[in-house]
Amino acid sequence: MNVEQKLAELGWTLPEAPKPIAAYVPAVRSGNLLFVSAQLPTREGKLLATGKVPSAVPIPLAQQAAALCAVNALAVAFAELGDWQRLVRVVRIGVFVQSDDGFGDQAKVANGASELLQQVMGDAGRHARATIGVNALPLNTAVEAEFLFEVR
Amino acid sequence: MNVEQKLAELGWTLPEAPKPIAAYVPAVRSGNLLFVSAQLPTREGKLLATGKVPSAVPIPLAQQAAALCAVNALAVAFAELGDWQRLVRVVRIGVFVQSDDGFGDQAKVANGASELLQQVMGDAGRHARATIGVNALPLNTAVEAEFLFEVR
Amino acid sequence: MNVEQKLAELGWTLPEAPKPIAAYVPAVRSGNLLFVSAQLPTREGKLLATGKVPSAVPIPLAQQAAALCAVNALAVAFAELGDWQRLVRVVRIGVFVQSDDGFGDQAKVANGASELLQQVMGDAGRHARATIGVNALPLNTAVEAEFLFEVR
Repeated sequence: MNVEQKLAELGWTLPEAPKPIAAYVPAVRSGNLLFVSAQLPTREGKLLATGKVPSAVPIPLAQQAAALCAVNALAVAFAELGDWQRLVRVVRIGVFVQSDDGFGDQAKVANGASELLQQVMGDAGRHARATIGVNALPLNTAVEAEFLFEVR
Repeated sequence: MNVEQKLAELGWTLPEAPKPIAAYVPAVRSGNLLFVSAQLPTREGKLLATGKVPSAVPIPLAQQAAALCAVNALAVAFAELGDWQRLVRVVRIGVFVQSDDGFGDQAKVANGASELLQQVMGDAGRHARATIGVNALPLNTAVEAEFLFEVR
Repeated sequence: MNVEQKLAELGWTLPEAPKPIAAYVPAVRSGNLLFVSAQLPTREGKLLATGKVPSAVPIPLAQQAAALCAVNALAVAFAELGDWQRLVRVVRIGVFVQSDDGFGDQAKVANGASELLQQVMGDAGRHARATIGVNALPLNTAVEAEFLFEVR
């Protein structure tokens, strides 16, 4: 699985693993599960999208933000594992979309993350998912997502 | 554990496993854990309840919707496992209730799912739970729930 | 790991494990993972803080509420395990903050729980985390948090 090459083909660069914004750690491994903390769509420390979807953030930008959360999660996983061969698959992702009341297209937004993981990791990128809308998120981010990987 | 007979006694029929509404898979197994994607209260493709609880959806209907999420999760688990004997127990459920501001009876709503699992599976249906209210959910569903099973 | 002594140094007393407010169980163990149900900030059955952060509940009080959720989760873990030596580490916590629209300091609130766990358990208290804002929570609690522990 050549994650970085696949990311490059899609126009992404693997960043440094983002640092947590508060008193937690980027990831914890227990057995063969790697729990990656909820990621924000930050690039070089700046949020890609803030505010509610779709009034402040149109769906295509929110999808990009979800994809960026996934890229950041891959960076965290690599920082923990040191070797892509130890990344077995994505097990579950949780996607949180800051939503206007009445907005119901959170699944489209979350697809930004889901499709990126499958494009980059193939079948190993397929995952169970829970996606919800919320009225507020940390730092006013439009999207936040957490990731559970199986590792070896 | 005769899940289908118990469901029938309670007036439910095990449906076909619902297909994901977006780019994820119904369930992923890792070790002895089966992560089932968040389920909507769909029956034959139609949502049982949309909008906020309780202004658009009264609590009893929301409870039915939560129960239907659980029935759908059992259908997904059976489709993955092929044999009820491989279903050991429910470990955790997460329940999301589209809520009016100030509504605080999400636990009653979530009991629709929790009580069904216990009626159908007995002690093996008892589970840890996290229940929250949110202002918006995919497809405007009133209730959504994800499920973690232990399997063999 | 002397959890009760550390709690006492910080001014906390380990309570009786809170009873679930509905049809679920306090915790479920599967393999080496202990899933603790979402905890409310209750002390002797009373919620420490209700309503939205920050309009009804200032951040410092919400942080205390988050810490109290963590204390209650430790009580649940101890009731399950019977021996602190069987508690290996905190793996993940999920923190839900009842938030005003536009509030973005949920991470500060969640630090109330995260910092307590690290003060009490040292490195074993470090964890992955997902923190979100929501518009409504059970019993109108200001904060709710669930906990995943590794156990032996």
